[in-house]
Amino acid sequence: MHENIDTLIIGAGSAGLAALREVRKRTDSFLIVNDGPWGTTCARVGCMPSKLLIEAANAFHRRNSFEAFGIRGAGQLHVDLPAVLHRVRSLRDGFVAGTIQDSDAGDRQISGRAHLLGPDRVSVNGKEYRARRIIIATGTRPRFENAWRSLGDRVLTTDSLFEQPTLGRRMAVLGLGAVGTEMAQALARLGIEVTAFVTRRSAAGLSDPEVLGALWPLLEREFAIHVGERARLAAHAHGVEVISGDHRVVVDQVLVASGRVPNVEGLGLDTLGVTLDEHGLPPFDRNSRQVADLPVFIAGDLDPARALLHEAVDEGHIAGMNAFAGQPQGFRRRTALAITFSQPNAAVVGRSFKELSGEDIVIGHIDFSRQGRARIAQENAGLLRVYADRATGRLLGSEMCAPAGEHLAHLLALAVNNGLTVQQMLNMPIYHPVLEEGLRTALRRAASQWSAKGGDKAVSDLEACDLNRCGVMD
Amino acid sequence: MHENIDTLIIGAGSAGLAALREVRKRTDSFLIVNDGPWGTTCARVGCMPSKLLIEAANAFHRRNSFEAFGIRGAGQLHVDLPAVLHRVRSLRDGFVAGTIQDSDAGDRQISGRAHLLGPDRVSVNGKEYRARRIIIATGTRPRFENAWRSLGDRVLTTDSLFEQPTLGRRMAVLGLGAVGTEMAQALARLGIEVTAFVTRRSAAGLSDPEVLGALWPLLEREFAIHVGERARLAAHAHGVEVISGDHRVVVDQVLVASGRVPNVEGLGLDTLGVTLDEHGLPPFDRNSRQVADLPVFIAGDLDPARALLHEAVDEGHIAGMNAFAGQPQGFRRRTALAITFSQPNAAVVGRSFKELSGEDIVIGHIDFSRQGRARIAQENAGLLRVYADRATGRLLGSEMCAPAGEHLAHLLALAVNNGLTVQQMLNMPIYHPVLEEGLRTALRRAASQWSAKGGDKAVSDLEACDLNRCGVMD
Repeated sequence: MHENIDTLIIGAGSAGLAALREVRKRTDSFLIVNDGPWGTTCARVGCMPSKLLIEAANAFHRRNSFEAFGIRGAGQLHVDLPAVLHRVRSLRDGFVAGTIQDSDAGDRQISGRAHLLGPDRVSVNGKEYRARRIIIATGTRPRFENAWRSLGDRVLTTDSLFEQPTLGRRMAVLGLGAVGTEMAQALARLGIEVTAFVTRRSAAGLSDPEVLGALWPLLEREFAIHVGERARLAAHAHGVEVISGDHRVVVDQVLVASGRVPNVEGLGLDTLGVTLDEHGLPPFDRNSRQVADLPVFIAGDLDPARALLHEAVDEGHIAGMNAFAGQPQGFRRRTALAITFSQPNAAVVGRSFKELSGEDIVIGHIDFSRQGRARIAQENAGLLRVYADRATGRLLGSEMCAPAGEHLAHLLALAVNNGLTVQQMLNMPIYHPVLEEGLRTALRRAASQWSAKGGDKAVSDLEACDLNRCGVMD
Repeated sequence: MHENIDTLIIGAGSAGLAALREVRKRTDSFLIVNDGPWGTTCARVGCMPSKLLIEAANAFHRRNSFEAFGIRGAGQLHVDLPAVLHRVRSLRDGFVAGTIQDSDAGDRQISGRAHLLGPDRVSVNGKEYRARRIIIATGTRPRFENAWRSLGDRVLTTDSLFEQPTLGRRMAVLGLGAVGTEMAQALARLGIEVTAFVTRRSAAGLSDPEVLGALWPLLEREFAIHVGERARLAAHAHGVEVISGDHRVVVDQVLVASGRVPNVEGLGLDTLGVTLDEHGLPPFDRNSRQVADLPVFIAGDLDPARALLHEAVDEGHIAGMNAFAGQPQGFRRRTALAITFSQPNAAVVGRSFKELSGEDIVIGHIDFSRQGRARIAQENAGLLRVYADRATGRLLGSEMCAPAGEHLAHLLALAVNNGLTVQQMLNMPIYHPVLEEGLRTALRRAASQWSAKGGDKAVSDLEACDLNRCGVMD
C-alpha cells in the first residue's frame, strides 16, 4: 500500500521551507517531512542565537572604551550570564516560532525520518509514498565524536550551547571557523576564560595571509589560541582536560565547533540508481539543483559547497521552481559572500585571495588602525584588501577584518555582482567621516597602480562630461 | 607695486586644500590665503568634533539596553562631561593638525583677508597680487544674530560648542537640520535636558513625510521639540530665556544651529564684472566651477547647492584642474548623498522624495521595528523608503531613518550612481542576519508592484542562465 502525492520535501530547514514556498504556488498535493525538532538550523541553533549572544557580548565589551570617552563607572558593570542566555533563548524561540509558522501545512507536514526507496518512492514512518518530484534538504549536524558523549554537558555544540542555564568559568573552543571565531570571542567578552584549539593558524574562513595576520593578534588579545595537534578530550576531576600534544588545559566546558557533517546516512541516496561521490551525494547541477536527469533535487547545506543561509534559501527556491519545470532551468548563483560576526567583522566577498592565486590582479588595502572615523569610535583595528582584475579593472573580490565589515562586504558584493570596476566604485559618493572612506583608500591604492603605469589614467574619481549636457544627471 | 603669481587660492578649507593639491601638481607659483583660524570647518568645528561628541553620547546611551541584554550595573554609569569635551578637543586637534599639514606651503601661505580687485587682481593685507587664475573657496560661518553677542558664552554655535570646558544642565537647540538634530540628540544622550526649537516640523533634511513621521517621535522620546514662531533669546537671571510665541523656556545655554551663511562680504566679487545673484554670487558652472568665462573658479560651501565635505572636496579638485585647462572641462557630479548621524541615522540618497514629486515612481518600504537583526541588537526603530522609476525599474533615490543607515545609504548610492535597477540590487547576495535584509524587503515590495501588473516578471531575485554556461561566473 502506498499513497501517491505530487511533491515530497525531505527536511523543513531553511532550504526545505524555501522549496515549500514555491511548491505551494504550484500544487496542494505535497508533503514536507522533518526529522528531529522543527524550526531551522539558522533560527534554532545557528545565525539567530549566535547573533543574540554576540550582541550582548559586544555591548558589554564596549565598556572598555568608556573611560576614554569620558564615561565613568564601567567597573561596576557585570554580566548576569543566566539572564544573557535567557534572552538568547527567549528571542530565539520567537524566531523559531516564525519558521515553524512558515512550514505549517497541517496534515501535509510529518515528523519522521524519510528513506528513499527510488527516484519516486519514499518511506516515512513505515508508510510508502510515491512522489512525482522529490526535494532533498536534510541539512547538517555538528561534527561530534561518539567518545565525547560520556562527558555529558561538559562537551557542547551549538545544538546545546544556548540551552545551558549558565556556563562555566573556563571554556575551550575547538575550531576557529566562522562559528568558533564568533563564539570564542563572544564567550570571552562575556567574561569566560576561553582557550581556542586549532590545528593550523586559520580563522574566520580568511584565506588572505595579510588579513588573517591582522585579525589573529586581535583575537589573541581576547582569548588564548593554541595551534597544534588535533585536540583530545578527557574527563578530569575539575572538568574536562583538553589535550593537544604536550599542551593540556583543564576547562569547565568545551564547545566543539569543528564543522558540520551532512545528514546523508540512511537517506537511501543509493537507491537513486546513480553513482554517489565521496560525501555520499549523487551528481547534481549546482545551478538547477537537479540530481542527474531525475525528478529529484538537492538544496541546502547537505551540499557543502556553500553552506550559508542565503545560499540554502536560493537553492530551495531553485529546486522548488525546477521541480515543476518541464526542463529544469539554470540560475546564475550570486556573488560569494561569507561573513563572520567577530569584531572586527571578518568577510570574504567574491573570489577569495586563495581562489585568485596565479591570476593577474591588482591589490589595494586599508589599515583601519589610523582611519579617521574608526578612531573617533574607538574601533580602529583591522585590514581590508580588495582584488581587481589588472586587465579590465573589474573588482573580483575582497577579504577583510574591518569595523562595520559586514556593511563594507555588502557594498563590495553589490559591485562584484554587477561587474563594476574599481573606477566605477570610486565614482560613487562617499560621505565624511565614514568607514567607507577606508574602503575608498583601498580602491584608490589599487587604482594608483594603473595610473602609475598608464600616465594620468586615474587622476580623478570623477567622470568627465560634455559641459552642455552633464548637468542632466543628478 | 604688485607681485605676479600664477594661482591664488582664497580659503584653506576642505575645498581650498583640494584645489591646492591639484595646483601644486602644475605650478610652484601659487599663494593660498586664509582668513581666521587655519584648519578646515570640517576638522575644526564640523564633521569631526560633532562625530566625537556623538560617539561618546551613543556609547553612554547604549546602557539603556544593558538590562535587557543581561548586563547589570548600568545605573552606576555617569558622564564626566568635561572629560568628554576634553577628548573631543584632543582628537579634534589631531585632525586639525592633519589638515594644516596638508596646507603647509611655507611662505606661499598667508593669513589674511583677500579682496578681489578684478578677475586677476587680489589684495591681501594691503599688498596687491596679480594672478593668472583665482580659486575662491571662502566657505561659510554659522548664522548668528548680532543681538545675541551680549549673551556671551550662553549662546553657542558649533564654532564655540566644543571649546566649552563643560556644558549647562539645560540647553536649547535652535534648528533641526543635520547639525541641530545630531547635536540635540547627542547632548540629550549625555544627560543634558534639551529643548529644540523649530519653525516647522522638519528634521535631518528629510523630505519624505513618512520617513520624517518615523524619526520625529524617536527624537521626541529623547528631547523636547517646540514647533512654533522663530525663537527669540533674552537674558534671564538663571540663564537665557528662549521665547517662541507664548512658549518660554529658561536654559543655561543655547546652541544656534539655524544654518550657515556664505562668506562673501567684502570679497569683492562685484569687481569681476559680472552680475551677482541674490546670494551675492557670480554666475558659475556647477560642473566646471568656472565663473562666467573668467579664469576664476568657485569651490566649496560658499556655493550652498551642496554644502557637504565630499562635494566641497570634489569642487576644489575640479576647480584646481580646470584652472589649468585650456578649455575647462565638465565633470559629472556624484549621486547626491546626505547623512545625519542621529540614531537611527537619517539619510537622503539620490533624488529625494520631494524632488521626485510628480514623477511616476514605485515606492518600497521597510519598517525596522520588527526587522530581525535590528531586534537582536535592540536597534529596531526606523523606516526606509526606496524610489524607483516605474518605466525602467531604475533606482532613483531613497530616504531613511534606519539602524546602520549610513551604510545602507552608501549601498543605495552605489546602485543609483551606476544606474542599477531594483532587480539588479535584488540579485546581490544578502547575508543573514543583517540589516541589509531590511533594505531587501523594501526592494522586494517595490518589485512586487511590477510583478503584480506584469505577471511573474519578478518571481525570483535570481537571473536565469543557460545551464551549460551559468557555472562560469562566480
